[in-house]
Amino acid sequence: MRAAVLRDGRMVYRDDVPEPVPGPGQVLVDVRACGICGSDLHFAAHGDEVMSMTARVAGGGGGMTVDLGSDVFMGHEFSAAVLEAGPDTQAPAPGTLVTSIPVLLSAKGVEPIVYSNSTMGGYAERMLLAAPLLLPIPNGLDFRHAALTEPMAVGLHAVNKSNVAPGETALVLGCGPIGIAIIAALKLRGVETIVAADFSPKRRELAATMGAHRTLDAAQGSPFDSVKPAVVFEAVGVPGIIDDVLLRARPGTRLVVAGVCMQADTVHPFFAIAKEINVQFVLAYNPEEFGESLRALAEGDIDVTPLITGEVGLEGVGQAFDDLADPERHCKILVTP
Amino acid sequence: MRAAVLRDGRMVYRDDVPEPVPGPGQVLVDVRACGICGSDLHFAAHGDEVMSMTARVAGGGGGMTVDLGSDVFMGHEFSAAVLEAGPDTQAPAPGTLVTSIPVLLSAKGVEPIVYSNSTMGGYAERMLLAAPLLLPIPNGLDFRHAALTEPMAVGLHAVNKSNVAPGETALVLGCGPIGIAIIAALKLRGVETIVAADFSPKRRELAATMGAHRTLDAAQGSPFDSVKPAVVFEAVGVPGIIDDVLLRARPGTRLVVAGVCMQADTVHPFFAIAKEINVQFVLAYNPEEFGESLRALAEGDIDVTPLITGEVGLEGVGQAFDDLADPERHCKILVTP
Repeated sequence: MRAAVLRDGRMVYRDDVPEPVPGPGQVLVDVRACGICGSDLHFAAHGDEVMSMTARVAGGGGGMTVDLGSDVFMGHEFSAAVLEAGPDTQAPAPGTLVTSIPVLLSAKGVEPIVYSNSTMGGYAERMLLAAPLLLPIPNGLDFRHAALTEPMAVGLHAVNKSNVAPGETALVLGCGPIGIAIIAALKLRGVETIVAADFSPKRRELAATMGAHRTLDAAQGSPFDSVKPAVVFEAVGVPGIIDDVLLRARPGTRLVVAGVCMQADTVHPFFAIAKEINVQFVLAYNPEEFGESLRALAEGDIDVTPLITGEVGLEGVGQAFDDLADPERHCKILVTP
Repeated sequence: MRAAVLRDGRMVYRDDVPEPVPGPGQVLVDVRACGICGSDLHFAAHGDEVMSMTARVAGGGGGMTVDLGSDVFMGHEFSAAVLEAGPDTQAPAPGTLVTSIPVLLSAKGVEPIVYSNSTMGGYAERMLLAAPLLLPIPNGLDFRHAALTEPMAVGLHAVNKSNVAPGETALVLGCGPIGIAIIAALKLRGVETIVAADFSPKRRELAATMGAHRTLDAAQGSPFDSVKPAVVFEAVGVPGIIDDVLLRARPGTRLVVAGVCMQADTVHPFFAIAKEINVQFVLAYNPEEFGESLRALAEGDIDVTPLITGEVGLEGVGQAFDDLADPERHCKILVTP
């Protein structure tokens, strides 16, 4: 079958990938749409660094074992149609549109669908999913939108972990897909003052469309010069941002770090100590948040239409990875195999 | 009157300090005991650094203005006896033993009693306190012990901010006065598994006396090799500790940073992101916590006797500052003017 795979740092089109075969508890699905995530771009460019950092965090406990010398399958923001259940497996009727948290259950155990030499991700014609984790897509929701259940759940989780109250001012630093998902979740939670900062005019425009009440050009000075947020969401993920927030934020600020910075970073603990700042680092979401994200999309509480700035086939994934570097052109590109 | 003052980085004895005169709302008190705090040692050695960092955090908002070229008064862990109230001021009867949060109220506003060229601290025969903030020392509590209300409140605050539950395992890194105060507060809160780590045998012994159920020699490997805490208290305050905790702690760990690190520090945000670690930086306490600390001492729920490893007069403060460098000899030295 056809798929786009990571080979030597580039996404490459293949038409000779072996067909996946569902085992017990698994379902073969036809991928309808898969969003390209910034973490995939980062893995393509710095896969060795991601793996060494993941191994350090896992300690003796393993971590990912991905051979970068072989093809790597990726794609974890997907929607699909059920094709065929594995042996002795209950599954929705063929043709049912579904999504799932990106985790495959198998005889080997639990495997994230994120980077793998063997387990297919969403940049492919077909893939396997775990029958017990399938969520049917309700309300006739467009499968393109349903594919964004996953990134929107990341935003929802970050907002949940912040314990933000509707009357508090929230500042979102960075309006890439994660920042935008946070803005949408803040709006969903009824937060009355959402301020968003980015260098890109297009991204500030998108932030306003998705729920930001005010946007700030990061090139025009520190956002903290004009807003005194109770909660700050860091969705940039480059060294230096955390320390700048610690320096400029007001006492008692809650900082949620959602940007994934892989490099070493310099901070001044005293800035945070003097102001008793709380820093909550976040990564993913739980299954309940994933389900709530899907419901919010299906019920129209979050409309992801403005996020989707491009759509490509499997042959176009390599070019799409390049194009996503330009924040003026793109936010989220969907792969529709 | 007599006092010990900071001059050119050393504590110097003086017998010619002008007598403080209580203004409206103020009370002149006779200092009975004042604990020497690690932050005073740090200020004596690195006062310029403390002031530049404080100014950076305060931004345009001022911060401390202390002239290191002139004598500096310090001492913020005190107990005292009331001598005389200022004009139109309600105060406890002369002779009443009191303590107070280290804050002086005056016509100029609110001034911390911490480092000052003009406002006397507890390393002196007499000082001024704010009448509305005075707490009488109850239950015949020894004034020596009452002087430690302040550092014990720091520990109580750190524990309160951690939201630790009795069934959770708490790990305290560093058993200096702050670490010990945290251990005492954990015991007060009924935490059933308190583990403490330090390089010093004496300090580990003190930790056990004050409530640690298990102590670990930090020289014998990482504490995380033998304990999987839900909550970690960092009470060391040197660069590198935070990153080591982020690397070794288990997912979902709450890290409370109580050690005051003034230097720049290197961290790997990814360690914390991958495990969704929460970092709560803490500094002081609120008035309720200060009051609870005094009650816990007065009711015998916290016994600070083992902490007090020395007692000196005002002439001995300089030597005491030097002696406190040795963790095998000292934890807390009281100045009894």
